[in-house]
Amino acid sequence: MTRMTILTEADLRALVPLDLAAVDCVENAFHALATKAVVMPPILRLDIPEHRGEVDVKTAYVPGLDGFAIKISPGFFDNPMLGLPSTNGLMVLLSATTGVVQALLLDNGYLTDVRTAAAGAVAARHVSRPDASVAAIFGAGMQATLQLEALCLVRPIREARIWGRDSEKAEAAARSLTAKFGFPVRAERDAQRAVDGAHVIVTTTPAETPILQAAWLQPGQHLTAMGSDAEHKNEIEPAAIARASLYVADSLKQTRRLGELHHAIEAGSIAADADFAELGQIIAGQRQGRTDANQITIVDLTGTGIQDTAIATLAFARAQERGKGTTFES
Amino acid sequence: MTRMTILTEADLRALVPLDLAAVDCVENAFHALATKAVVMPPILRLDIPEHRGEVDVKTAYVPGLDGFAIKISPGFFDNPMLGLPSTNGLMVLLSATTGVVQALLLDNGYLTDVRTAAAGAVAARHVSRPDASVAAIFGAGMQATLQLEALCLVRPIREARIWGRDSEKAEAAARSLTAKFGFPVRAERDAQRAVDGAHVIVTTTPAETPILQAAWLQPGQHLTAMGSDAEHKNEIEPAAIARASLYVADSLKQTRRLGELHHAIEAGSIAADADFAELGQIIAGQRQGRTDANQITIVDLTGTGIQDTAIATLAFARAQERGKGTTFES
Repeated sequence: MTRMTILTEADLRALVPLDLAAVDCVENAFHALATKAVVMPPILRLDIPEHRGEVDVKTAYVPGLDGFAIKISPGFFDNPMLGLPSTNGLMVLLSATTGVVQALLLDNGYLTDVRTAAAGAVAARHVSRPDASVAAIFGAGMQATLQLEALCLVRPIREARIWGRDSEKAEAAARSLTAKFGFPVRAERDAQRAVDGAHVIVTTTPAETPILQAAWLQPGQHLTAMGSDAEHKNEIEPAAIARASLYVADSLKQTRRLGELHHAIEAGSIAADADFAELGQIIAGQRQGRTDANQITIVDLTGTGIQDTAIATLAFARAQERGKGTTFES
Repeated sequence: MTRMTILTEADLRALVPLDLAAVDCVENAFHALATKAVVMPPILRLDIPEHRGEVDVKTAYVPGLDGFAIKISPGFFDNPMLGLPSTNGLMVLLSATTGVVQALLLDNGYLTDVRTAAAGAVAARHVSRPDASVAAIFGAGMQATLQLEALCLVRPIREARIWGRDSEKAEAAARSLTAKFGFPVRAERDAQRAVDGAHVIVTTTPAETPILQAAWLQPGQHLTAMGSDAEHKNEIEPAAIARASLYVADSLKQTRRLGELHHAIEAGSIAADADFAELGQIIAGQRQGRTDANQITIVDLTGTGIQDTAIATLAFARAQERGKGTTFES
């Protein structure tokens, strides 16, 4: 007889809100990546071009955690025509000691949204100026909102700008975020004006050609680029990386292949084997982060299996504490 | 609201027995691999050495099938000390059109056992002599029994030998198989004597050093090697492949990396880029199989995601026809 806990999206939204505990959970995962014998294989990716579909499978083992997650993330971009969301997905949590399935987290991508936003907060906490108060967010979707929310957890944000390809959507987001946060959030149609004077910039778009130009970056600015999680995605002009005083990867192996770094290498502005710090190394004090208030810094987030394992482990631990979920025996 | 069907191992054992329909299902999958735009990414593998654990994740998209499976196969080799089986696992079946999860198949590896045995039958059906009546099975575990059962579905087997490292286990298997099949099944302590005079040989062991020597092979014999599904596994002497008239891979890309072929390439007896037929190409008539009764033939099976997608699709279709499984709504 095996016993598995099934947690629905509603369960998971109640159990794992985007808060400082979620940020700390993801920070600990990055710390482990730099300090422990983490095992994180390359992402498995399946493409189904006939249906504009793709599936990513990510996993990672973090020594010290009881379990490890295998995350299945489908994106089927014709789904909206069928009245379905483009992305959904689930995580399977297995025991790290026995491989037995502990829980099925039917999150429809919610936990990914949270761990991705939390990584943005971790990046800002360790690399942006501590007094950063003006945010610029590129993109007007779910992740744009969550990234701003995450920034507010770690920096004294009191003004924000939103740039979106669809300016009406950006206007609507700006209105709702102003109401939500109680500080002015302005939709900005001109991408350069959105950047001008911001202290922290977060790009969250699925852009395939750069939106943000290297020359726009100003001393002291921190940029977190989190849209590029596949070879063809590219939000920032490749020259921006050479222009920055500090470039930080979530996983250097991965950003060389998938992230903004990959485009800088392809463009020839960065050597393929150039060494850069990883976020976990800065958290662990192994490498230096920002050293003065005038540096331009960039953190390149492609998304890692350790974040999934960390957030899934947190969700399951809380579900057990609070007796949540459906038990399925077989 | 999304709806998912959960099928337990007991459901799946009742829905998908090892029979000719299962063999045909797997044969169709290999045929598709040779004739359709199948997408089969490399296996994702995670190792957890602290607990002697490993997890393989396989998937494949077969055009024309409604769904595709993502199979999670953990093997934790200290589990028996805890009273748990070493291997378990499950498959997640997703819609190939929308990526929505259709079913969760909690098979604990049962469907893998069936699709692996079925591939053995497909290999024998297309490459062994049609009149093959004497089988030699290496290994005395579950898969040894299933491979013999599968052979009996496609060839007029009337005698078999079992060789096992543990000769008592082989004796016990021989007794139970004799009772099951109604023809003599003999445990053979001497591996060469097990091979001598057999028409079809199937190796099912997790051996890491070759058991079966090249010089033992006799004209007309067919050998299916199915134990080597990882770099370090090796059941047959590398020289056997050069000695055979015909070598066939389930997936050439995979056997070059994981199968018996990989060891022949490492030993220098086969060129790394040597071209060989795949099983699907023979099924589809694109390449020749056995051309005369005296050839020595080898089929190298490493296990493919198409087999998982095929058997999972069959299981789900039958569950729907018969109204089986638990519906979980979220």
